[in-house]
Amino acid sequence: MVITAPRVDRESLLDHYRRVRAATEALAAPLSDEDQCAQSMPDASPSKWHRAHTTWFFETFVLAPFVNGYQAHDPKYSYLFNSYYEAIGERHARPERGMLTRPSSPQVGAYRRAVDDAMESLIAERGDSLGRTIEDRIVLGLHHEQQHQELLLMDVKHAFSRNVYDPAYRRSSSAPGGASPTSASREPRPRGTEEASGGGARWVEHGGGMVEIGHAGGSFAFDNEGPAHIALLPPFAVADRLVTCGEWKAFIADGGYQRPELWLSDGWHTARRDGWEAPLYWERDGTSDGFTMLSLDGRRAVADDEPVVHVSHYEADAYAHWTGYRLPTEQEWETIAVLQPTAGNLLDGESLATAPLHPTAAPAPNSRGVEMRQCFGDVWEWTGSAYLPYPRFRAAEGAIGEYNGKFMSNQIVLRGGACVTPRDHVRPTYRNFFYPHQRWMFAGVRLARDLDFHTNS
Amino acid sequence: MVITAPRVDRESLLDHYRRVRAATEALAAPLSDEDQCAQSMPDASPSKWHRAHTTWFFETFVLAPFVNGYQAHDPKYSYLFNSYYEAIGERHARPERGMLTRPSSPQVGAYRRAVDDAMESLIAERGDSLGRTIEDRIVLGLHHEQQHQELLLMDVKHAFSRNVYDPAYRRSSSAPGGASPTSASREPRPRGTEEASGGGARWVEHGGGMVEIGHAGGSFAFDNEGPAHIALLPPFAVADRLVTCGEWKAFIADGGYQRPELWLSDGWHTARRDGWEAPLYWERDGTSDGFTMLSLDGRRAVADDEPVVHVSHYEADAYAHWTGYRLPTEQEWETIAVLQPTAGNLLDGESLATAPLHPTAAPAPNSRGVEMRQCFGDVWEWTGSAYLPYPRFRAAEGAIGEYNGKFMSNQIVLRGGACVTPRDHVRPTYRNFFYPHQRWMFAGVRLARDLDFHTNS
Amino acid sequence: MVITAPRVDRESLLDHYRRVRAATEALAAPLSDEDQCAQSMPDASPSKWHRAHTTWFFETFVLAPFVNGYQAHDPKYSYLFNSYYEAIGERHARPERGMLTRPSSPQVGAYRRAVDDAMESLIAERGDSLGRTIEDRIVLGLHHEQQHQELLLMDVKHAFSRNVYDPAYRRSSSAPGGASPTSASREPRPRGTEEASGGGARWVEHGGGMVEIGHAGGSFAFDNEGPAHIALLPPFAVADRLVTCGEWKAFIADGGYQRPELWLSDGWHTARRDGWEAPLYWERDGTSDGFTMLSLDGRRAVADDEPVVHVSHYEADAYAHWTGYRLPTEQEWETIAVLQPTAGNLLDGESLATAPLHPTAAPAPNSRGVEMRQCFGDVWEWTGSAYLPYPRFRAAEGAIGEYNGKFMSNQIVLRGGACVTPRDHVRPTYRNFFYPHQRWMFAGVRLARDLDFHTNS
Amino acid sequence: MVITAPRVDRESLLDHYRRVRAATEALAAPLSDEDQCAQSMPDASPSKWHRAHTTWFFETFVLAPFVNGYQAHDPKYSYLFNSYYEAIGERHARPERGMLTRPSSPQVGAYRRAVDDAMESLIAERGDSLGRTIEDRIVLGLHHEQQHQELLLMDVKHAFSRNVYDPAYRRSSSAPGGASPTSASREPRPRGTEEASGGGARWVEHGGGMVEIGHAGGSFAFDNEGPAHIALLPPFAVADRLVTCGEWKAFIADGGYQRPELWLSDGWHTARRDGWEAPLYWERDGTSDGFTMLSLDGRRAVADDEPVVHVSHYEADAYAHWTGYRLPTEQEWETIAVLQPTAGNLLDGESLATAPLHPTAAPAPNSRGVEMRQCFGDVWEWTGSAYLPYPRFRAAEGAIGEYNGKFMSNQIVLRGGACVTPRDHVRPTYRNFFYPHQRWMFAGVRLARDLDFHTNS
Repeated sequence: MVITAPRVDRESLLDHYRRVRAATEALAAPLSDEDQCAQSMPDASPSKWHRAHTTWFFETFVLAPFVNGYQAHDPKYSYLFNSYYEAIGERHARPERGMLTRPSSPQVGAYRRAVDDAMESLIAERGDSLGRTIEDRIVLGLHHEQQHQELLLMDVKHAFSRNVYDPAYRRSSSAPGGASPTSASREPRPRGTEEASGGGARWVEHGGGMVEIGHAGGSFAFDNEGPAHIALLPPFAVADRLVTCGEWKAFIADGGYQRPELWLSDGWHTARRDGWEAPLYWERDGTSDGFTMLSLDGRRAVADDEPVVHVSHYEADAYAHWTGYRLPTEQEWETIAVLQPTAGNLLDGESLATAPLHPTAAPAPNSRGVEMRQCFGDVWEWTGSAYLPYPRFRAAEGAIGEYNGKFMSNQIVLRGGACVTPRDHVRPTYRNFFYPHQRWMFAGVRLARDLDFHTNS
Repeated sequence: MVITAPRVDRESLLDHYRRVRAATEALAAPLSDEDQCAQSMPDASPSKWHRAHTTWFFETFVLAPFVNGYQAHDPKYSYLFNSYYEAIGERHARPERGMLTRPSSPQVGAYRRAVDDAMESLIAERGDSLGRTIEDRIVLGLHHEQQHQELLLMDVKHAFSRNVYDPAYRRSSSAPGGASPTSASREPRPRGTEEASGGGARWVEHGGGMVEIGHAGGSFAFDNEGPAHIALLPPFAVADRLVTCGEWKAFIADGGYQRPELWLSDGWHTARRDGWEAPLYWERDGTSDGFTMLSLDGRRAVADDEPVVHVSHYEADAYAHWTGYRLPTEQEWETIAVLQPTAGNLLDGESLATAPLHPTAAPAPNSRGVEMRQCFGDVWEWTGSAYLPYPRFRAAEGAIGEYNGKFMSNQIVLRGGACVTPRDHVRPTYRNFFYPHQRWMFAGVRLARDLDFHTNS
Repeated sequence: MVITAPRVDRESLLDHYRRVRAATEALAAPLSDEDQCAQSMPDASPSKWHRAHTTWFFETFVLAPFVNGYQAHDPKYSYLFNSYYEAIGERHARPERGMLTRPSSPQVGAYRRAVDDAMESLIAERGDSLGRTIEDRIVLGLHHEQQHQELLLMDVKHAFSRNVYDPAYRRSSSAPGGASPTSASREPRPRGTEEASGGGARWVEHGGGMVEIGHAGGSFAFDNEGPAHIALLPPFAVADRLVTCGEWKAFIADGGYQRPELWLSDGWHTARRDGWEAPLYWERDGTSDGFTMLSLDGRRAVADDEPVVHVSHYEADAYAHWTGYRLPTEQEWETIAVLQPTAGNLLDGESLATAPLHPTAAPAPNSRGVEMRQCFGDVWEWTGSAYLPYPRFRAAEGAIGEYNGKFMSNQIVLRGGACVTPRDHVRPTYRNFFYPHQRWMFAGVRLARDLDFHTNS
Repeated sequence: MVITAPRVDRESLLDHYRRVRAATEALAAPLSDEDQCAQSMPDASPSKWHRAHTTWFFETFVLAPFVNGYQAHDPKYSYLFNSYYEAIGERHARPERGMLTRPSSPQVGAYRRAVDDAMESLIAERGDSLGRTIEDRIVLGLHHEQQHQELLLMDVKHAFSRNVYDPAYRRSSSAPGGASPTSASREPRPRGTEEASGGGARWVEHGGGMVEIGHAGGSFAFDNEGPAHIALLPPFAVADRLVTCGEWKAFIADGGYQRPELWLSDGWHTARRDGWEAPLYWERDGTSDGFTMLSLDGRRAVADDEPVVHVSHYEADAYAHWTGYRLPTEQEWETIAVLQPTAGNLLDGESLATAPLHPTAAPAPNSRGVEMRQCFGDVWEWTGSAYLPYPRFRAAEGAIGEYNGKFMSNQIVLRGGACVTPRDHVRPTYRNFFYPHQRWMFAGVRLARDLDFHTNS
């Protein structure tokens, strides 16, 4: 799972462990026991399940195999909190997770503390001589837990959307849009193309050719980010910012959700069956083109200049078709991303507890126009690439090998990282993946286009 | 809804109101906030939903129409806690009740107290001059709440059955069977007929003829118990006790769940589709004919002499077919029940909080053999009667009229009352009703048979 | 199955056999091989399946057990053409009947001829000494086949309704309504009550008391029509004619399909889920209250004076609720029906092949007003009675016992017989039964009401 | 749709038109009207629907737009026989195609003849001056019809599999396996790897590098085969023949269908849900490792040396995982295929009517070992490539543009062509595509593996 990550000393590892574990509890803190227990759809999980499952990971893959005489905290937890590891055995049915009124949320807290004690003893006692396998698994477990921090926020948002009170997870003073939704332009822009190529988004161009793709080692990465390899790209350009809500309103106003010619066949059937007429969490506000949306701040007006979020791949593809452009491939995206001087508005892992949990409007472009104004940490960006193994990819043996490889069918790669993504998961080679119909993750859209070969001269 | 119930004075009504309302809270007290929030199937509701819905009933049908200037405690509660009253307006989808993490359980408690304050003020201020309509609605609301007390226990039991811990709602020192399951006879009795007609159950005979059916007034009854009327019955007999778990094991051992000739066609298809092989909550214990079952005491061995419970009408009918007898009609049941000197082991409404919440073995028969040893308060007894209006039945106008009449299709009448039924709901004319496939209520079986006409001479 | 039917001589039996068998083939004659192969819903069967299944009945219950050395025509037919007899063994899944492109329709014809040859030999060779069991089974088989003649017409009509061509099964010169739909009154009548009690329908009154119900022997009847027994009825009246399409339009115009207070709860959910807005096969014709409907004559205008047909029990009950009256019980219906001097416009079994296959308008009332103008042979009439066994009913042993008894749950009794019902199935004691949501049979509505007891003086 | 296909003269076009159209009718000839009417699953269509839909294509895209005053043969056919073209308007629901008893099969024949007359007049009258658009559409329509010839055979096979008679579409004297199934080795070979790399299959190696992919013009191709472009491949090898049924039996015997670690997650869930234990149409023959399978010749024993067919992508991937190898990418497959001296055992389009409709065993390898023994025309071969647009692909405008592009999500590319594929559809660049769970097409497996870079020296 881990590609040539550097060795760390005991103190660093202990600190890393404590920071990540504490961050999870901080994220769950605003939630009542009832909030932590509900499951609003089969794809989502209760908050306390996330808290227990991430703990189960350490118990199953570190404590049980490497601590002599380790006794499971509760022998039924292996059944209850296994997510999808077939090699570990039978497990609780996913859609039944909302039935887990017991163990209670405080009992899950006790479970976390007990495993933390055992883990910290393990790290402390063995000191810097901790074996490479153990260390790798601990680091993997921490990255795994950070993935669930994001899932926890996604799932809370979805659960709140099913509640008539439109609850706020956390009030923020910086929420966009609420103050003056009327200041946004109400003129639908024809196809958004002028905007995307002119005063609005600008194209970041690349001449194509041989490029290096994938994570080459030296720091932590998931197995699906490798092996690093060479790919061949034709000339292309990608927009320097994300598609905005204002542009999406123009798509809606132009009948985007009613025109089958814009959609993939499977997407059209899904959109008709499920009655899609706008991004998830949007509701019309009673005016002809105004919408409100649920955010983790509660429900508020949609601001035209913020990036659109909670759209499926099908919607992203239809939107791109409507503009005449297309989605970038994951190779194109990565090629541009690695050239950025900074990783953008990266979020600090510890600070998800205080960061704004919504994407923000792109800053004004700089004069050079070759950098991307908005690249990491706002929304996950749909690519046009199916989630498949890189050439020569091999999954690890055993249960750990189930982490990524077995999901390499029917899903689409997303790149970039969102406002609810821990910092450690925002890097140019990171491959996120979801089914093309899913919408509850923080996913948005960046456009791309072909360049003529002669522009490459 | 109320058939000529006697007028009550202010103090009695206040006392009645307080007792019923307190009993609900006492039943919910052993449950955590998480326990109270989960919904384990669409037929069931979260405990706190029951607590809120019964409160909504008083707010909607008493406070809102009869208290000048009454302000709803929360304007969204009318949407959230309306169960099925079309005349009141749109309502929260039934299968979504488990999403109600908010209002929280304490907020529901505050709602109950606020409505109690308003109700007690209404009763106290108007004194004995409270109008008949108001008084009737208050009494109806209290009986309605007692129905939900039973539903709350049914639903908790079902939710606990989905939990890997087999939790106990309340430990009891008197639970049958746990101590010595091996003391029960393990010899399958052929068809249970000797048992039912001989040393075990005995037949209580009736010569048939004109009998009076239904509630004739003088005390509270639901509208579906009237009008009282005359029916004509052929000679018949009913067993003086319920079918036991030991007898049911013999049915299982004789292939009862594998023999289509014993079953109604719809029952057979349901049993095959859902994989029924024993009553709900039974699990094989590893021996050839032994079973454990989940009770509100937790999981324990099935005792041979306790009444079988949690069987569907389809199973009850197949069992009766297997014995060569049949289920009683609701008229036969009522005719015998009104002749009993006592209403049996009736439970006190207030004392559900301390009563054993499981049916108990029948006492030994007395020498006369014409009384029923077991009649009220163990399990609801399936009849062979479809739930239809009595002759000349008319539902009340308006939303209150939706209480019973609109359910008079596709359901089957049950009589008698169960160990989880409040005392006020145990009377000879009471008509309970469920769909023939449902099993989560405390329903069991009493046998009946035809007598020759000449036995009537 | 057969209640004390008289013995018949060989010639009569042969003639009976030939007439019924030929009538089936005559009914199938207008259909192409493709028409005979399609299955338009799980409740319906292909025409050739009906032709084969009725033949299988004779092969299975007469030839196989009673003819020495009888060889099955095709050993797979026992699997393919068993409808629901569990005792006979495994069978082809009902919803798969449309996959039976083989055996072909001509092969089914050959099967029929082969079985007919064997049956006729059996009858001829044994002569008048044919055993009672054999004779009873032959007669049962012929009545069974006549039931399938009606099913064949129902199923053809449904299949044609799924075809964009609105095909006609048979053109008739007497089809009502087509000529001048505008001649019908377009004034919605308030609630139809004046009509039902005044110039339109008239009430046929009965004083109630002890009445005899059920078939007492002397001619063929199905087992579910007995045993004959005494019932006790309060005073009542039934309308002397069926509810008309004109009256139904008034129900629609008054919002009948949009008002939950008129409906049973299960009915309302079914109507909402399936989008009912009018009887099955009705379509709006573009005017405000005009409709066309599919009949076996093809699509034509709905005539106001013809009886409404293809309504579910839920719709029938809602309609009755709307008028303020109710549906008759099956005992009330039978009590009045046996008093009629004739069985009404009975259809001749042989002549279904030429009869009009639609219900006709009621004749003008006679001066006495105590007879029913319309009682048999127009539409099956929904009663308010659940389909349950009569007191002391016992199903026959073995596969034959599966004929009726195992369906005695969840269904509703219909009485009277329809325009597509063979004459032999139109009698006062006949109990037809369908689920309350079903609409593809020819079912309509007659109203009933309570009379005061003093009218009985 | 057509990439720079050469112009053809009138006579060639007429001849082409007549040959393809006649081949369709020849394929349908062995089927009865009933066989042609049934629809055995939503993915499949009745034979006569294929005959009508291919005719509708010419009527809609050639006759209607380009023949002045053309009158539709039947105005309802545009609704009935539109497959999925949203731009053409509403259409008959796909799962309802089996309800089309009318138009009858002979009426579909008349439709074909009428359109053929109009088409031949168009071609003959305009002569060689037929416009490029018209000519392109005619050629496209003929290729489209050939695709439906294959679909017709697939769908007939599936429909026959639902018939208890295991009908033969056409008896063949050359069917493999039937004679001596016992002659096949019954020893399970461990993982099949020795077989695949040794005495059995041999590896055809390629050093990787820049390769040209896609159709470059000069003859007919579908739009999804272009644009031609350069790709970069690492060194690889592909097996010189297909995976055989004998090898697949070893996979089954080694628990291949019971071991989740071999499967993609979505594949495992599908296999469990649908109860897969062998390829579609296989049934155990009662011996420990013997199977029969349904072919278009009827049911017969599975021969060990014939290629496995009717496996899903999920099964293909699990099999490859079991061997330790993998599926080829579509680029790898095409790179090797274009190097073959012949297109293998190509089938003649006209002769599908007489060709064996089953894949055949691979011939013995030649001495050089660098050519593929089995490449075209046995089974479609699953690749590891998602079906996505080639770089710079653009769908055509209008309804014709719906032909391929809108399906570019969730599907997997197959290459090669099957024994039921018309010759014109067997070429190195052809991209077939199906969902990874589908099995009713003639799909099999070829293995591939990575080569070390140094083997490329």
